[in-house]
Amino acid sequence: MSNRQIVLNERPIGMILESTTALRESPVPVCGPDEALIKVGLLSIDPTIRTWMNDAPGYLPPIGIGDVIRSGGSGVVVESNSERYQVGDVVNGMTGWQEWAIASDANRFTVLPRGLGLDLATVMNVLGATGLTAYFGLLDVGAFKEGDVVVVSGAAGATGSVVGQIAKARGARKVVGIAGGAQKCAEVVELYGFDECLDYIEPGLTRRIHEACPSGIDLYFDNVGGAILDAALANIAMYARIVMCGAISQYNATERDGVTNTSMLIMRRGQMKGFIVFDFARRYAEAHLELAAMVLDGRLVHQEHLVEGLEHAPDALNLLFTGGNHGKTLVVVDESVQLS
Amino acid sequence: MSNRQIVLNERPIGMILESTTALRESPVPVCGPDEALIKVGLLSIDPTIRTWMNDAPGYLPPIGIGDVIRSGGSGVVVESNSERYQVGDVVNGMTGWQEWAIASDANRFTVLPRGLGLDLATVMNVLGATGLTAYFGLLDVGAFKEGDVVVVSGAAGATGSVVGQIAKARGARKVVGIAGGAQKCAEVVELYGFDECLDYIEPGLTRRIHEACPSGIDLYFDNVGGAILDAALANIAMYARIVMCGAISQYNATERDGVTNTSMLIMRRGQMKGFIVFDFARRYAEAHLELAAMVLDGRLVHQEHLVEGLEHAPDALNLLFTGGNHGKTLVVVDESVQLS
Repeated sequence: MSNRQIVLNERPIGMILESTTALRESPVPVCGPDEALIKVGLLSIDPTIRTWMNDAPGYLPPIGIGDVIRSGGSGVVVESNSERYQVGDVVNGMTGWQEWAIASDANRFTVLPRGLGLDLATVMNVLGATGLTAYFGLLDVGAFKEGDVVVVSGAAGATGSVVGQIAKARGARKVVGIAGGAQKCAEVVELYGFDECLDYIEPGLTRRIHEACPSGIDLYFDNVGGAILDAALANIAMYARIVMCGAISQYNATERDGVTNTSMLIMRRGQMKGFIVFDFARRYAEAHLELAAMVLDGRLVHQEHLVEGLEHAPDALNLLFTGGNHGKTLVVVDESVQLS
Repeated sequence: MSNRQIVLNERPIGMILESTTALRESPVPVCGPDEALIKVGLLSIDPTIRTWMNDAPGYLPPIGIGDVIRSGGSGVVVESNSERYQVGDVVNGMTGWQEWAIASDANRFTVLPRGLGLDLATVMNVLGATGLTAYFGLLDVGAFKEGDVVVVSGAAGATGSVVGQIAKARGARKVVGIAGGAQKCAEVVELYGFDECLDYIEPGLTRRIHEACPSGIDLYFDNVGGAILDAALANIAMYARIVMCGAISQYNATERDGVTNTSMLIMRRGQMKGFIVFDFARRYAEAHLELAAMVLDGRLVHQEHLVEGLEHAPDALNLLFTGGNHGKTLVVVDESVQLS
């Protein structure tokens, strides 16, 4: 029995190519003391993986050449020498792009809750890193208040769509999405229930944000960076909070867009604050309870975009940048791994 | 008796020119009910005046064409129908560029303290808007902590020089200035006691900040914006605080520099926060006490750059952008107005 793995073959410039990664067959890892062996079921495909492929300063070290692509994922425990995990537990953590992974003290997994009536893909979407990022980014980093005018970029994405829905559920005055193309914008309004969605591909975004938010933006949740961040900055209200969550428009860019409106932070006494969801790890349970409740009572609509087969993980990652995905992108490595 | 005034004649593009302003003679204003008439002594020449000349969104409305140039200043009360002011009080507030000003409920002045042994120019520098900006920006907006590595741009300026000295007095691990040219940099180290000063005119600023702050910047106090802000962003430590105070590099610019390193806020969980010193008006007395004490016991070194004559106020403002000033720039309108 072997462990198929996708490793980093060369550092990409721009979009990842055929030659960026390579498929490797390794032996299934041996489960050592205090470790558990995990059969990987689903991989979580997130924009941040692209940043780990660069040899640049980040919040985690770059993936080494020849190393398995770092990635979130879930799987089932098939062997355990650890008190933390029972055989049969479905767990979530950093599996990497491979069929088998090891949970250890250095690489801890969370045991996922059964009996909530949520399937594994839903849990990985709404209760996974993207849903948690939306929750803590909006409520803690952005200090969301009832009555806020909220603008969310990447609004059709796994994080953005959840941000807008939490904001609506908590009493935002208005929730405006920004997304690319008419189809995505329709999805944001009709499926996710935003009040409005602006297509950034059309010209005049700064003016259109002003028309949608004539009294200014109280809270801007930024998933994209670059020119869209700049257009939002031009429209902030007094004491605005800008949540710096991601900069997907820049991850594949060889030259980064410059942001010219940072002085608006002075004029409007605004703040921009960056965060990484891992910083909130001790409080995930609180978010899980609220997010699961919202899914179960229908206030939180979600979609998963399933890509079949470990070997298609690189294509799945590219979908995030071409906009070819709808909802949370997951790669199915083993469909027999299920929560319920 | 007339009131000589400098008014806005046309909106400048870039540096202000001869034609930007005009000298006008008006009657001395009449002191109405609840008002006081002020003979102006010194004008405070601050970069922000340049921003008020633009027809652009700001924290105050633009100066109207034909209106007196808005400006801080000090003077002596020569007539009073207000309980707030006694004849002979030396007061500080928004005088505008003119010889006579009116204090009213809409335009309140602060009565300056006598008997501290500080002369008027010193008080307008260290206890005026620039010193107060340094104090509240560093301690409140930047949440300065003992042991912080602090970097200050515009370090030879009236605000920057005070920021660095307060940081040193309060136990910063290291205080690094950024200024333009060898002479300014020498002043920052030798006169104001910063640990180091980097000349932004020399190439490689990003690398040189890294060399000066190998563990990163904990607190960056930004007076200049643009490319220097970008170089500082590239070097922030975890949980860094960036105080957005001013953007003097951009005030005369017809095209603004783009800031490309905002994603560092995500990687390092940093924050950028803008403010205007007026927001802290209720707490000025607290700052006055500490700043005056620091001047009197020699911990706070200061310089004033006096320009003689109301008619030279426009040239004095340009000095801030050419770097031709040393310390706080003040225009002497009437040298007989004194504090002690």
